[in-house]
Amino acid sequence: MQEIYMACDHAAFEGKEALKKYLSNNFEVIDLGTDSPERCDYPDYAAKLAKAVQDEPKLGILLCGSGIGISMAANRYSGIRAALCRTPNEAELSRQHNDANVLCLGARINSDDELAAIADAWFSARFEEGRHTGRVAKFNDLGEKA
Amino acid sequence: MQEIYMACDHAAFEGKEALKKYLSNNFEVIDLGTDSPERCDYPDYAAKLAKAVQDEPKLGILLCGSGIGISMAANRYSGIRAALCRTPNEAELSRQHNDANVLCLGARINSDDELAAIADAWFSARFEEGRHTGRVAKFNDLGEKA
Repeated sequence: MQEIYMACDHAAFEGKEALKKYLSNNFEVIDLGTDSPERCDYPDYAAKLAKAVQDEPKLGILLCGSGIGISMAANRYSGIRAALCRTPNEAELSRQHNDANVLCLGARINSDDELAAIADAWFSARFEEGRHTGRVAKFNDLGEKA
Repeated sequence: MQEIYMACDHAAFEGKEALKKYLSNNFEVIDLGTDSPERCDYPDYAAKLAKAVQDEPKLGILLCGSGIGISMAANRYSGIRAALCRTPNEAELSRQHNDANVLCLGARINSDDELAAIADAWFSARFEEGRHTGRVAKFNDLGEKA
């Protein structure tokens, strides 16, 4: 099975557990935490997943309460293209146009069922290349290296 | 009047013009382009606005078709906290919890009226500080300098 990374903060711990269970039918999930609902800081988990993707490229999913903070932090890292998505349509666009390799989700914004549908759409879509390739290249290598 | 930056790509040119007109009632808008619906690359406009904020800090708004690509690119830059928002509630959260200084919008996702309502909510909200201050500090200085 294809391996993927997942990580989250405390606000999304339950959402991450539910989504991990759902995705485990089709993927080998490498869970980078957090492992409890105890308070933690979303940038720490964005960094863990970003560095994992830099070291060994795989697709990844990051969750926090809104998805906003964890997407800001993840995009600080070179080679990470972290897309905050609220709908399956946005998830498709983020793969087709932006070659997103990290899906960011808000566990307090979308229900568990919605998160699963967004993830399904994201994994099913493919980068369209063409004119999008040059656009991605213009920012992809900026930012922090592992 | 408070000065703000705005920039966008071709897909959001009309949306940017409409939002600029709306916001000009309350803000002095420094428009960094694009200035026509001719095709251009969103990372160029993310970079322009990010460097403007780094040089002379003000709040800013970035738009592309989905808002996803331009938010990825903007967050590559140190000190930029670019929040992709689809609703007024998300806009408030991004200021309260993440001290967002750049609002990212998708002109093909939200209507002009919706974009105006999201922007209003964003400008009205304030950073809550407290535990959020340390979280923002953990990633804020990462990334590219001007």
